[in-house]
Amino acid sequence: MKPHRPRELTREEALRCLASVRVGRLVYTHQALPAIRPVHHVVDDGEVLIRGHAGSALLPALDTVVAYEADSVSGDDRIGWSVTVTGVARRLDGTDLGERLRQWANGDAGYVIWIHPELVTGFGAAEENGTA
Amino acid sequence: MKPHRPRELTREEALRCLASVRVGRLVYTHQALPAIRPVHHVVDDGEVLIRGHAGSALLPALDTVVAYEADSVSGDDRIGWSVTVTGVARRLDGTDLGERLRQWANGDAGYVIWIHPELVTGFGAAEENGTA
Repeated sequence: MKPHRPRELTREEALRCLASVRVGRLVYTHQALPAIRPVHHVVDDGEVLIRGHAGSALLPALDTVVAYEADSVSGDDRIGWSVTVTGVARRLDGTDLGERLRQWANGDAGYVIWIHPELVTGFGAAEENGTA
Repeated sequence: MKPHRPRELTREEALRCLASVRVGRLVYTHQALPAIRPVHHVVDDGEVLIRGHAGSALLPALDTVVAYEADSVSGDDRIGWSVTVTGVARRLDGTDLGERLRQWANGDAGYVIWIHPELVTGFGAAEENGTA
């Protein structure tokens, strides 16, 4: 088997990879230290929407520049692709969302964190990035 | 089915969770922006060791305060536990490592990033944190 050489993904490829999974990690700053939380997301028309937790853990992320990462790890722990989106985290409430997203958000909590992807980076082994 | 109420993990529980998986995400700063990379780790006598990539992506993390997160996500995308370790990332070369770790490191690249966990936080649903 040939080794999988990772390569940079285009913005479109990276967003497609991100849209193909449902869990990623929100990275933000809390009390001057980096904080990371696994959360659920969807990609909706190029925008990244994250389901707020019932608790307050994610509140320090609001209105700050955050990173959001998702990746693909195979059953034998091989890392396929990784995508990171950087942008400001904004809070959306139910009234800002269409019916489908409102239902998705309410499954866990009452709000959604919206990240407009200012910067999108990613790498992946060509065989595994969902763009073949 | 009762909902899984996450609770804070003790340091020992959190390190045990971290030791139970092989992939996590290193969070550091690169060009004034948060950077995240999925990587492979082991926990060795309470210390976190990360396998350096063949490339130079992780070099900006060295000698800075980083966060390292791992989590457990089930097949239906439910988030079980999440553990974050914070500390300074130091580079270890082959001569610093015992035989077992040297073999592990050389499988991918020639160096290891060592994080002494100054701060260990974690949460988990009691049923899923590997400490029952």
